[in-house]
Amino acid sequence: MEAKTKAPGQLLEPQTIIAGLLQESPICGERRAYQPPLCPSLQGLGATRPLDGAELEVLKVAREQLPFVSQNKLLEVVPAQGRPLWDGPRNIGVVLSGGPAPGGHNVIAGLFEAAKRAHPENRVLGFLAGPKGIITNKHVEVTGEMVARYKNSGGFHMLGTGREKIDTPQKMEQCRQTCAVQKLSGLVVVGGDDSNTNSAFLAENMRDLGVQVVGIPKTIDGDLQVPGLCQIPFGYHSACLAFATEIGNLNSDCKSDLKYWHFNRLMGRSASHIALEVAFQTHPNVILIGEEIEERELTIHNVVRLIADVVVARANLGKNYGTILIPEGILEFIHEINALIIKISHIIAVYNREAHEEEFFHKLTFEDQVQLIDNNDIWRDYDSRVFLGLPPELQRGLLLPRDSHGNFQYSLVNTERILLGMVATYLRKQRSKGIYKGAFRTQNHFYGYDGRGTFPTKFDCDYTYNLGQAAFSLLANGATGYMAAIRDLHLPLEEWRPIGIPLAPLMHLEERTARLELVIQKQKVDLGSPAFKILERERQKWAMEDDYRFPGPIQFHGASAEDKPITLMLNALGGRSDPEGGSQGSRAR
Amino acid sequence: MEAKTKAPGQLLEPQTIIAGLLQESPICGERRAYQPPLCPSLQGLGATRPLDGAELEVLKVAREQLPFVSQNKLLEVVPAQGRPLWDGPRNIGVVLSGGPAPGGHNVIAGLFEAAKRAHPENRVLGFLAGPKGIITNKHVEVTGEMVARYKNSGGFHMLGTGREKIDTPQKMEQCRQTCAVQKLSGLVVVGGDDSNTNSAFLAENMRDLGVQVVGIPKTIDGDLQVPGLCQIPFGYHSACLAFATEIGNLNSDCKSDLKYWHFNRLMGRSASHIALEVAFQTHPNVILIGEEIEERELTIHNVVRLIADVVVARANLGKNYGTILIPEGILEFIHEINALIIKISHIIAVYNREAHEEEFFHKLTFEDQVQLIDNNDIWRDYDSRVFLGLPPELQRGLLLPRDSHGNFQYSLVNTERILLGMVATYLRKQRSKGIYKGAFRTQNHFYGYDGRGTFPTKFDCDYTYNLGQAAFSLLANGATGYMAAIRDLHLPLEEWRPIGIPLAPLMHLEERTARLELVIQKQKVDLGSPAFKILERERQKWAMEDDYRFPGPIQFHGASAEDKPITLMLNALGGRSDPEGGSQGSRAR
Repeated sequence: MEAKTKAPGQLLEPQTIIAGLLQESPICGERRAYQPPLCPSLQGLGATRPLDGAELEVLKVAREQLPFVSQNKLLEVVPAQGRPLWDGPRNIGVVLSGGPAPGGHNVIAGLFEAAKRAHPENRVLGFLAGPKGIITNKHVEVTGEMVARYKNSGGFHMLGTGREKIDTPQKMEQCRQTCAVQKLSGLVVVGGDDSNTNSAFLAENMRDLGVQVVGIPKTIDGDLQVPGLCQIPFGYHSACLAFATEIGNLNSDCKSDLKYWHFNRLMGRSASHIALEVAFQTHPNVILIGEEIEERELTIHNVVRLIADVVVARANLGKNYGTILIPEGILEFIHEINALIIKISHIIAVYNREAHEEEFFHKLTFEDQVQLIDNNDIWRDYDSRVFLGLPPELQRGLLLPRDSHGNFQYSLVNTERILLGMVATYLRKQRSKGIYKGAFRTQNHFYGYDGRGTFPTKFDCDYTYNLGQAAFSLLANGATGYMAAIRDLHLPLEEWRPIGIPLAPLMHLEERTARLELVIQKQKVDLGSPAFKILERERQKWAMEDDYRFPGPIQFHGASAEDKPITLMLNALGGRSDPEGGSQGSRAR
Repeated sequence: MEAKTKAPGQLLEPQTIIAGLLQESPICGERRAYQPPLCPSLQGLGATRPLDGAELEVLKVAREQLPFVSQNKLLEVVPAQGRPLWDGPRNIGVVLSGGPAPGGHNVIAGLFEAAKRAHPENRVLGFLAGPKGIITNKHVEVTGEMVARYKNSGGFHMLGTGREKIDTPQKMEQCRQTCAVQKLSGLVVVGGDDSNTNSAFLAENMRDLGVQVVGIPKTIDGDLQVPGLCQIPFGYHSACLAFATEIGNLNSDCKSDLKYWHFNRLMGRSASHIALEVAFQTHPNVILIGEEIEERELTIHNVVRLIADVVVARANLGKNYGTILIPEGILEFIHEINALIIKISHIIAVYNREAHEEEFFHKLTFEDQVQLIDNNDIWRDYDSRVFLGLPPELQRGLLLPRDSHGNFQYSLVNTERILLGMVATYLRKQRSKGIYKGAFRTQNHFYGYDGRGTFPTKFDCDYTYNLGQAAFSLLANGATGYMAAIRDLHLPLEEWRPIGIPLAPLMHLEERTARLELVIQKQKVDLGSPAFKILERERQKWAMEDDYRFPGPIQFHGASAEDKPITLMLNALGGRSDPEGGSQGSRAR
């Protein structure tokens, strides 16, 4: 050959080059170098004052179970005006709870940097592997070096997370002991609805120890909202954009290859917030919204028909490809299926409560399980008929073990594959009648865990850093039994308003493991919201035309780095930032 | 409330804001604005000259079937020195073939802009939906507006793609007619090994019409390489990074949530190039390399054991989580399984050749299929024993219909789920012996189509734009029966060297649909390469420590935007850019 190959970076030794290629990606260092800005109210650490306006109602049962914290009023964090914060150095605990959500590390960074700014001897203790870390007093002291290392990174691996529920007097006592031993003045719980329920009870029960508790609204599912006060929990935006990257790529692929229908199930528990946001980010051909299916009382066969009709109509245009979004909780919104789920959950819970461990329901054979259900008094002939009309995979799915809270585990059921199979069966009939002449080739996907672990978007980086700082301000000003939040997220950061939302008014009664429990109410997609109304208007076009949107990979520079959730922006147009206004009146008061 | 909500961007009407949110993502405009640079040899359109050095050997059967193009010698594109290019305006066809790969639109952009620079009346015709578009003369004229719209975007949807093989005299005649009617002087075929095989035969058969044919090395699978000449096909880098984003996110998630083993199957046909690159990008706990499994003659039970041993060892450290990469073609490298696949493929092909359509093998019941195989002469008792020892899902997988080329369709078999099930079975036995005490909770994933559709990385944008320009230079200088390539991709773009590789020496004989066919040989992972040697050295650490790497989403600004494939960079250290050097001597000559 005329020219010998040159090694890359000729001045470096090969071993140096190899070492460089095995190091962390350069993006990690770049993200660490980003310092999220603070909104004006938090720049001086902030004082608190009552927020005038609507009274939040509290259920009688909540007032009884949470007599102290149920008296809390809405608080606003305002620029400090010489008012003293905590006197002297304090210890603050922080725990990450439930599924990971992008931005958790910045909550800790915000909390830590606010604490150190307030008093250099303030300490932050991070409990390990979730609430179990409080119970067993497993923790590390958060240091500046740790904060610098994890700032703006994804995941919860700085401390790890877990799902332990503090639901017995014994566990509560262990938490009290840990907080006493560690001389904590405050505890910050980063979590979703169940974790913030924990926060309320911890606040109530540790009042006498002088331990204040503040929660942080986290969940990629987007269902921890407080109308007008907390527009969206953190992590939602990043996870949605990670999923949207993947769906956008599938849009591109199916329009290129012209031969696949992609059935995509998206994580997000029961509510369809994630599917809604991903729909606006990607403009798929079909999008199912659970809350709409419930409202319109669609059966599962109606849903199958709804998908199949688009497949047939597109085939008539010569388009045998497309993308379909299916929220993982869709089954809960199909009345006939949900009735089965509720009854089966109840039967399982009662059976397991009375059974020895080796006799647990999920250890029975499928046939024995069906017989047990069939013999139960709450199971009617109609239920049997519906059950027997379902595909075997769905029948088995409905009997799967419930989670530790007694919840049906939607993510374990391959709803996208089940629907795909039912659509294929329906299309075969349409083909035999000569109505459908297309080719129905499919791929099915489930997007969930990878989105939970993504790098947080710039929006989530800023949001969580401010949340951590707001949590410190609330604690330092004496608040307990609150959830920190930021109002007006749709406005520029300079206009963000940190607040403290009392936890008690957010709670309602819900059946869990066959018992009514006081828990924070999840928010579903509001069919009266601007976002849903605009979806209704646009989706017919998305179905037939290839109006695909390609959001691309999450960027940290350029115009798309300034992205915020599209649903957040649309709903803000409808004045939903006002707790009295808007159409969302469905919360139990 | 004390303050009324302000609408975002207060000076805009709500309808304007909504319209903005429904428009394309800002990233699309930003990517379109990027103009890939040209390497020096292409800046003046380029002349060609023979590239001194190694002779490429051509098989006798290739010389017989391709008597004209098998005489081609290696060409180098050098800065034009007054040598005349094509005289007068010409028409050039372009076709996208096979699965989409990020960067295809930039091949067209490069070709178009080179053509227009050479002569403003040069025209580029894009055939629609793959090679079928040539056969049926379905095309659009590529315009400057189209090129501007699609530049640097993902997918192949500017023209669509397809897998039609030009494998009969009749189809070849139709192609000849189309090219004659359109008065084409050149045709650029963008595709993988099968498509470039097409190119060679088209070049041979359209010589008398004066139609020159040049191929472009495309495939995310990374297996269309020519040692020392074509280090990697385009699309590989982008797809690997898209997958690496997802696996990196799972690293983050599993290390946070501390409870899942993620089994990930990665697209990439038989070779393990994608898995290897993704491994360097993410440092997973287990990575299977098909070529190594073949070399070490591992059985499927050995592979299961290999995974389970890491699970057990990590459980002993209290780590019940991790990530595992499984190339989709792994089964081909397990001797006992591959023997079954080859025999079954042969039996199916022979059966289908003799059968009427309604009797095709895949229309038989599973039991009849098994019986048919069992009764075949080439099926031995040993084969039956191996087959019956496999899990039912794998048995069914091995009988799935073959593709139109007679290839076993690895992507249809859920290898990750099958291995997961076998590992779980093995671990249950280890648990009963008291050897394994961990919790084995799992998630399985298949990443493929979403990576094919991703936005191309900056590397792939530049590479493909230069490939398109190189293809024009080769055509304009009279070349036909070549594949355009760029040497020294590991060096800065200023040192890239565009070349023309003769197609005939790349071909070998391969069994397809029970016949030996002359096709371009796929390149597998070279176990003697620096990249594999370094993997061998590093993977023990990756298995036990959590040395996870987080490559994050693909960036178009900042240091990580300058990323190139890590395997490319590592292999360049070993002098593999020299076709005579290096350890890869396995190509049939």
